[in-house]
Amino acid sequence: MKVELLIIGNEILIGKTQDTNSNWMAKRITKYGHQVKRITTIGDKVKTISETIQRILQRKPDIIITSGGIGPTFDDMTLEGIASGINRKLELNEHAYNSIKKAYENAFHKGLLKLEGMTKERKKMSYLPQRSIPLPNTVGTAPGVKIVEGNSTIFILPGVPAEMKAIFRNIIVPILKEQQSNFIEKGFIFLGIGESQIAAYTNELEKKYPQLWIKTHPRIGLSVEVEVSITAFNVKNGEKLIDKVLNEIREIVTQLDGKIMERT
Amino acid sequence: MKVELLIIGNEILIGKTQDTNSNWMAKRITKYGHQVKRITTIGDKVKTISETIQRILQRKPDIIITSGGIGPTFDDMTLEGIASGINRKLELNEHAYNSIKKAYENAFHKGLLKLEGMTKERKKMSYLPQRSIPLPNTVGTAPGVKIVEGNSTIFILPGVPAEMKAIFRNIIVPILKEQQSNFIEKGFIFLGIGESQIAAYTNELEKKYPQLWIKTHPRIGLSVEVEVSITAFNVKNGEKLIDKVLNEIREIVTQLDGKIMERT
Repeated sequence: MKVELLIIGNEILIGKTQDTNSNWMAKRITKYGHQVKRITTIGDKVKTISETIQRILQRKPDIIITSGGIGPTFDDMTLEGIASGINRKLELNEHAYNSIKKAYENAFHKGLLKLEGMTKERKKMSYLPQRSIPLPNTVGTAPGVKIVEGNSTIFILPGVPAEMKAIFRNIIVPILKEQQSNFIEKGFIFLGIGESQIAAYTNELEKKYPQLWIKTHPRIGLSVEVEVSITAFNVKNGEKLIDKVLNEIREIVTQLDGKIMERT
Repeated sequence: MKVELLIIGNEILIGKTQDTNSNWMAKRITKYGHQVKRITTIGDKVKTISETIQRILQRKPDIIITSGGIGPTFDDMTLEGIASGINRKLELNEHAYNSIKKAYENAFHKGLLKLEGMTKERKKMSYLPQRSIPLPNTVGTAPGVKIVEGNSTIFILPGVPAEMKAIFRNIIVPILKEQQSNFIEKGFIFLGIGESQIAAYTNELEKKYPQLWIKTHPRIGLSVEVEVSITAFNVKNGEKLIDKVLNEIREIVTQLDGKIMERT
């Protein structure tokens, strides 16, 4: 499946917050054999969110995951932006309303909050785009949202990492697993030969094995990491092929007088 | 100035590498009073890079900074992608060629590399879009590139953080400083009142002071951070206004029976 991530939050654009959500999600999406095609980070602005979700939908990803901007404050504009982008109205979702109310009642009765009941700002979080499915937020108050639009499914998740992760694990991972293939990656590190010197050989290998992704990364101290990866349904066959190609590269490195170190 | 960042690299999309370059750049761009409007992360694919740079140029940012994909290997496609997007040919840039040659000669004579001279892969890095200005890379081999396209200036930087940072500091910071205003941000943390309870008040303050950005962040343990920021030419006046508004918020928090903690 093709996936796009949309990260929403001014705090990321001003550099106050390092976005770690997209990396966390990308790892898991890749692990189950799916592809993150693009990560877009934008601010909390209805027009920007609306135009961006439209553009993403035009590229027809199977899954779109947004993170951020669904809290109670005036600058949480994700739901309004998405609703505008897919031309749906916001309407009070009763399931969402009840789950938010319960979350605040619990916090009140535990003495964590001094205000009981649904304020205007708390109620705001239960206005979802028409035909939304609210996703339980077991960690915080704002529920996630699932929307089917054309052939794409949009998941709207909170920006707070613990809340995002809980909904991702509970709702999205099972979907990723359902259509799982396997991403396999192995590699090693070598010294004494530059990336540019090995490039001619890895270029040839990439042509010879078009199903593999062969990548070299320059590292500190002029060492180079080489990695070979594949998305395969059969893990055993995938690993066998990767091992074969890695051995070919090890031989080339040795012939060029380079020093091989295994990854730890 | 309006700035867009374009991060290029499959390793980020598969979650292998956490992109820290955009956060590092965003902090500095914000510090000098400029705005990062969007961060886009895409893979190493000529067509994607080409279409994305076209789309970014349509939004007319003053500055576009790309990071990644300018090394010697076959999957470094940024220069080809940008050239295609702005409809310019790649041509051998003599300044770039000479600086790359020198960098490899130095590495060879220091015994860091075993291969002297310009291979096809090394030479590849000196093919830049027509009318490019190469930017010296004092840390690595691939030079950065500056291109003026319409009213936008495109800076093409390496993905290796140390190399990106060196060129950013040497070339981009002076430009940011030239048109500098000041981004000022202060805040405090409070306990015992939820973000949703204070939201009604901060919404009102945001209307009263439209020049300010008032933001609350929920934190672990149900505490909330409030921050007030402004981009101002005069630091003293900006700070005075922020202090005034923060004191109004402190009063509200106290009246609501919340507990104030200063940030450390």
